[in-house]
Amino acid sequence: MSTSDGNVTSGIELWDLFENHFPSIVKQLIKAPPSLNGDKDSSIMWSYERIEELLNYNARSGKRMRGLATVSSYLHVMGKDNVKEEDLKIALSLGWAIEIMQASFLVADDIMDQSQTRRGKPCWYKNDGVGLQAVNDSMVLESCVFLLLKYHCRHKPYYADLVDLFREVMTFTELGQSLDMETSEKPEVDFTYFTKERYYAIIKYKTSFYSFYLPIACALYLTGNADETTLKKSCSILTEMGCYFQVQDDFIDCYGNPDITGKIGTDIESNKCCWLIVKALELCSSEQRQVLQKNYGKWDKEKKRAVVDVYEQLNLESHYHKYEEETYAKLSTDIKEFNHPNIPRVVFLELLDKIYKRKK
Amino acid sequence: MSTSDGNVTSGIELWDLFENHFPSIVKQLIKAPPSLNGDKDSSIMWSYERIEELLNYNARSGKRMRGLATVSSYLHVMGKDNVKEEDLKIALSLGWAIEIMQASFLVADDIMDQSQTRRGKPCWYKNDGVGLQAVNDSMVLESCVFLLLKYHCRHKPYYADLVDLFREVMTFTELGQSLDMETSEKPEVDFTYFTKERYYAIIKYKTSFYSFYLPIACALYLTGNADETTLKKSCSILTEMGCYFQVQDDFIDCYGNPDITGKIGTDIESNKCCWLIVKALELCSSEQRQVLQKNYGKWDKEKKRAVVDVYEQLNLESHYHKYEEETYAKLSTDIKEFNHPNIPRVVFLELLDKIYKRKK
Repeated sequence: MSTSDGNVTSGIELWDLFENHFPSIVKQLIKAPPSLNGDKDSSIMWSYERIEELLNYNARSGKRMRGLATVSSYLHVMGKDNVKEEDLKIALSLGWAIEIMQASFLVADDIMDQSQTRRGKPCWYKNDGVGLQAVNDSMVLESCVFLLLKYHCRHKPYYADLVDLFREVMTFTELGQSLDMETSEKPEVDFTYFTKERYYAIIKYKTSFYSFYLPIACALYLTGNADETTLKKSCSILTEMGCYFQVQDDFIDCYGNPDITGKIGTDIESNKCCWLIVKALELCSSEQRQVLQKNYGKWDKEKKRAVVDVYEQLNLESHYHKYEEETYAKLSTDIKEFNHPNIPRVVFLELLDKIYKRKK
Repeated sequence: MSTSDGNVTSGIELWDLFENHFPSIVKQLIKAPPSLNGDKDSSIMWSYERIEELLNYNARSGKRMRGLATVSSYLHVMGKDNVKEEDLKIALSLGWAIEIMQASFLVADDIMDQSQTRRGKPCWYKNDGVGLQAVNDSMVLESCVFLLLKYHCRHKPYYADLVDLFREVMTFTELGQSLDMETSEKPEVDFTYFTKERYYAIIKYKTSFYSFYLPIACALYLTGNADETTLKKSCSILTEMGCYFQVQDDFIDCYGNPDITGKIGTDIESNKCCWLIVKALELCSSEQRQVLQKNYGKWDKEKKRAVVDVYEQLNLESHYHKYEEETYAKLSTDIKEFNHPNIPRVVFLELLDKIYKRKK
């Protein structure tokens, strides 16, 4: 885990560093529940193989965006020459904790949405012998998150703050998820709920905090820079970036290439309050609105096609590209104007450039 | 919330005290997520009515055993004359936190077991407009637990320990639940897994820690008596008591009166590794074993009857009563011999007497 060659921040090396840290995470998780140590009952239930399979299947198939952002931000905030071996190890572990937290959410979401595939393979609950036990597996993954925090940071002065941070972000994500489902699962399709205000509330809470704010907030705690102002200013810019990220996700759900994304979008069929439909409702004629009303939220290929036809009449693709350019420009300006001694701009710029024009 | 009349520990008054504290719990939960304060998005998603309904439906229909034990233990450990208004309020809130934690587990368990009724009414997920969203509701309930801890104890020196305690107990419960499901959900009924050792591992982890150890550990932290020895000694006696409680539960599942229990047991149909079958396998002839093998774990009334017939041939009811008497005697002795300045025996005795010969 040498950092002395100064190249540690290059993409490939960071990826390898992060991946190579994984086996030690699993090992720690086996050892972590202290009261289980030496208790012979424990061998029955907390086996390396089981946890490893659960983690491998669910936490290691994504883009690692959140995990890598944690480590990369730590390196940027600290400055290459000041990196401490011990803290880098904590950054790597917190990065994995966030990836595992996401895995916990995804396992639960897929059950709730009755999804079939995730990242090009069957959803966890769809595997033989798993089924609804996956509800408990999702909780076990959440436990792993807090076991890692405890294992690595229990002795640190920021421990309680860090646990509070993870808890708060989880609560926000659940509330966003709750609002998302409540909006889409009305007995009848009811577009009066599909307002811009509600849409941005949903995506800010269900995505932004855990995907963008959390990794950077971790780096701030780790480096002793987590004062209230720095956290607040970073949060504001990062949740905005998180909303942009979720808008992309909504676009990709309909217009993405399944060979690249590893999944087939179902936002239209499942009556989701997403960017495309909210934009369409803003732009459409009353005739088009009737077509949408009749065809949205139905598991029927023809009806889905009718919705997409309206999207195409409205030129939503070009509206999306306009949104993307404007948002990128706005965020670039915000970052340029961001001036705070405790966190260098490159942290935000790197994230923004990573997601700009993404296809998956 | 006066305690000066000295009667606060009487059953009825304690119940009233606990119930009357509930509305303030809901109010606190609305206010608790600090970053949501003043954020106009938040009004959409975190409504008093919704949280109140979720809590009312799921956290207020049980026996309140765990919540009342928390408050009662606090009063016993502290001694009536030393009770502080502020700490009593914390005890009441922690009691509710444990009740809500249980609600979170039950909402999730009922989904996983595909149960129909709980405490005489439909399971939460069976309600119109809920369904699999209940997975997220279970997570929201868990969030409520930690919001309460934060709201009431963030400024206390024991805050990090308390959060660690709740997390550890949750992890244990999930691991127990995991082992329970893994044992019962084999593709074929396979009694080689139904060993006494595994049975006690399951019930110790899935029930004992959160139902018996957690309430008393809370009282110890609250009163400044949570040193390692006191915790450890209490844990040992309380997890034993918790196992006795779960054995009762298993017995009641088959032999209880549904009018009293509010549910119809399904342990036999769902192939559960429970006390009765483990005992039966210990006592039965090879012919009886074949009958059990053929009929256990099937959703069929005749087959269930065949299993119960073997239970009756083996006189399991009287074996259970023998177990109950022996366990009660053993625990009474353990308590009599328990001698520790930081926790009075009455804490354990009261709990034991509450569950002795229980019918629901």
